[in-house]
Amino acid sequence: MSSQSGINVAIIGVGLVGSSVISQLTTIAPLASKLHIVALQNSKKTLLSNPSSPISLAPPADWKQILQNSQTPALSLPDLVLELQRITKESGRHTAVVDNTSDEKVAAFYPSFLKAGLSVVTPNKKAFSGSLALYQEILQSSKQPDATGRTPLIYQESTVGAGLPIIGTLNDLVATGDKVKKIEGVLSGTLSYIFNEFSTPKGKGKNFSEIVKIAKENGYTEPHPGDDLSGSDVARKLAILSRLVPELSSELEEGYLSVPTHSLTPAPLTDCSNGEEYVTKLPDFDQDFEDLRRLAEQEGCVLRYVGVIDVEKREIKASLEKYPFSHPFASSLSGSDNIIAFHTSRYSQRPLLVQGSGAGADVTAMGVVADLIRVSERRG
Amino acid sequence: MSSQSGINVAIIGVGLVGSSVISQLTTIAPLASKLHIVALQNSKKTLLSNPSSPISLAPPADWKQILQNSQTPALSLPDLVLELQRITKESGRHTAVVDNTSDEKVAAFYPSFLKAGLSVVTPNKKAFSGSLALYQEILQSSKQPDATGRTPLIYQESTVGAGLPIIGTLNDLVATGDKVKKIEGVLSGTLSYIFNEFSTPKGKGKNFSEIVKIAKENGYTEPHPGDDLSGSDVARKLAILSRLVPELSSELEEGYLSVPTHSLTPAPLTDCSNGEEYVTKLPDFDQDFEDLRRLAEQEGCVLRYVGVIDVEKREIKASLEKYPFSHPFASSLSGSDNIIAFHTSRYSQRPLLVQGSGAGADVTAMGVVADLIRVSERRG
Ligand SMILES: NC(=O)c1ccc[n+]([C@@H]2O[C@H](COP(=O)([O-])OP(=O)(O)OC[C@H]3O[C@@H](n4cnc5c(N)ncnc54)[C@H](OP(=O)(O)O)[C@@H]3O)[C@@H](O)[C@H]2O)c1
Ligand SMILES: NC(=O)c1ccc[n+]([C@@H]2O[C@H](COP(=O)([O-])OP(=O)(O)OC[C@H]3O[C@@H](n4cnc5c(N)ncnc54)[C@H](OP(=O)(O)O)[C@@H]3O)[C@@H](O)[C@H]2O)c1
Repeated sequence: MSSQSGINVAIIGVGLVGSSVISQLTTIAPLASKLHIVALQNSKKTLLSNPSSPISLAPPADWKQILQNSQTPALSLPDLVLELQRITKESGRHTAVVDNTSDEKVAAFYPSFLKAGLSVVTPNKKAFSGSLALYQEILQSSKQPDATGRTPLIYQESTVGAGLPIIGTLNDLVATGDKVKKIEGVLSGTLSYIFNEFSTPKGKGKNFSEIVKIAKENGYTEPHPGDDLSGSDVARKLAILSRLVPELSSELEEGYLSVPTHSLTPAPLTDCSNGEEYVTKLPDFDQDFEDLRRLAEQEGCVLRYVGVIDVEKREIKASLEKYPFSHPFASSLSGSDNIIAFHTSRYSQRPLLVQGSGAGADVTAMGVVADLIRVSERRG
Repeated sequence: MSSQSGINVAIIGVGLVGSSVISQLTTIAPLASKLHIVALQNSKKTLLSNPSSPISLAPPADWKQILQNSQTPALSLPDLVLELQRITKESGRHTAVVDNTSDEKVAAFYPSFLKAGLSVVTPNKKAFSGSLALYQEILQSSKQPDATGRTPLIYQESTVGAGLPIIGTLNDLVATGDKVKKIEGVLSGTLSYIFNEFSTPKGKGKNFSEIVKIAKENGYTEPHPGDDLSGSDVARKLAILSRLVPELSSELEEGYLSVPTHSLTPAPLTDCSNGEEYVTKLPDFDQDFEDLRRLAEQEGCVLRYVGVIDVEKREIKASLEKYPFSHPFASSLSGSDNIIAFHTSRYSQRPLLVQGSGAGADVTAMGVVADLIRVSERRG
């Protein structure tokens, strides 16, 4: 029955990424007929669309307005689950929850979604980079079969490198028996931009603080640039990746907090909680960054802020490293691109490399929607 | 029922790639329990293993010996289908055929496999790069539901770039509504090696003919190097990729034969059918290659043999092109690696890049096995 084909999709978080997900699902005809939006929720409102009498969210309808006009205040997550179970039953279709928030509380609820038979798809890093206990509970919960004997699915491609094929590629390498030796990458778009501008094979460009200032003005950084320069986003991505490597899956008790992380914030600015003030004071430390850059240059290297997972050494770290001018991280990287190198038994002489934009609403949403297609292929 | 979980796998072609596929399926425990080998076939023998009393192919058993000792001469493909339908029924499991040959005749039989309800997974380029009529018949046949109402699947990741995530990535871009503008890549490992050695930002290395000779001696080329230098392998990969781009899916009536292809074989050697003789005569043409190289160098460029699909211009070609020293195809490529750049609406400022070894039995088998896992996830 065609009304039963595909899956239901419940979207929590309708900001930049969520809006782009909705746009892809409502405007691309082959997707609209497979991926049926049954719920939208932000921190204020919930909109439920019953499959038997669905609310049209496709243009010319204005889903933002429809959500804002909804009479239903944001449901608690347990109440949302009850509604989604009802909708699953009435529609005869499997339901996937998409978490487009960056909320720890939503992430902590994944085990409950899964135990209720709902699949989870998300670009939110919190659940996979937090405590090992939560991570393992999520894996356990995804193994419980529902009434039909099938297990819910969990996909997370966009948590690292947005829509770039990183998580899927790593999973394929591992599943087919390759041995990962080392994963190394420029995993933060912001730090990629800063160091691609600051340290090039062609020598010095602008001052470090000036580049950070421009990045902030162009919206490439978080409102407080210290949140990027801390390296914690890179540490989170390392936690996510290392848990997919069998040898390291039970490392990192405290998730990203267990990853040795080199913060670029100068010690005297550690307590500066105001982003504007931080940028104003950063020039005082330009000479320190310049010294590092020149030292690298003298060795024929550039500086790059990278994440490294060395499986053989059991070392996971986020840090500032030197790469020779001819290395792909130096010669081939530009803008705010991410790049990641998988060194494995099979890709041993030279790594498998993936490179491209690792942030932005549309490419992040693409990773989410591609994951939803996979859920639909398996459970639709 | 655990005996019904997973899928059956019938393997046609047990050469380099086929052997590695068998090795992965028999030695990696989580795969062995999901992907059950029920048939092996080469050009001489067939071995059938009934799911009710399976023949162990895992080490210490020697599957090569077991196949050679089989009393069954190679079945005709129609007879193989009958056996596989019987096995499918008896086992209660879906069956996938893996074509690890490079045989046109096996490729031409895909529609029959699919119409019989069997999925197809293959690294064989022939079916997807041949006539449009065969290609469309394959697509049509894969849409016919079987008795259970489900359609067979067809996967082909290893036909381009071996295990690199190329076909899957292109499919995800298209399915989520991105617009492909241009695809450009070094798609032949052999031609990558030859030009990475011949034309570098650092200037001239060895003579062209000398590099070809070394490549042949090391087994990097086909027995007749002219088969690589003709560019037809690149043209085949372009046909495969362009058919996945909606705007070009019905182009190329005659498949790769419709792709304008720059042959590197000097005109006087076109009719030289002996590989040894070809290599002996190639030095006569070194000056021509050297002139091209120096011309490029004067423009700050290297030579690379690439495939280009320009969607906006509707131009598909395999040719020798110039790339600036700083371009990833020049600066970041080495050995016999493949590299591919997807320029799309979403990846517009800079392309999505995938790079790494694009040949070799183990990485090719990895792409095949990852595809089998996907069939098992969807039909197991
Ligand atoms: N943007 C990117 O380039 C990118 C790249 C990779 C990954 N990601 C990840 O994608 C996720 C979304 O990013 P974004 O840029 O779209 O963020 P955003 O624009 O800030 O949107 C967040 C959305 O989540 C909602 N929200 C927050 N807490 C909620 C809760 N408890 N219940 C329901 N809704 C809640 C917000 O609703 P209100 O407006 O009502 O507060 C808002 O709609 C994040 O996890 C981010 O790390 C983003
Ligand atoms: N090797 C790579 O690096 C690579 C990379 C990408 C893609 N591929 C593709 O992968 C495929 C296999 O490559 P390979 O290197 O493994 O080739 P191979 O070593 O030459 O093996 C070919 C196998 O196919 C069998 N065969 C040929 N015709 C057959 C037929 N009509 N029926 C049954 N069996 C038949 C051969 O059997 P006999 O020995 O009895 O003749 C042999 O077992 C090719 O399509 C190739 O283009 C290979």
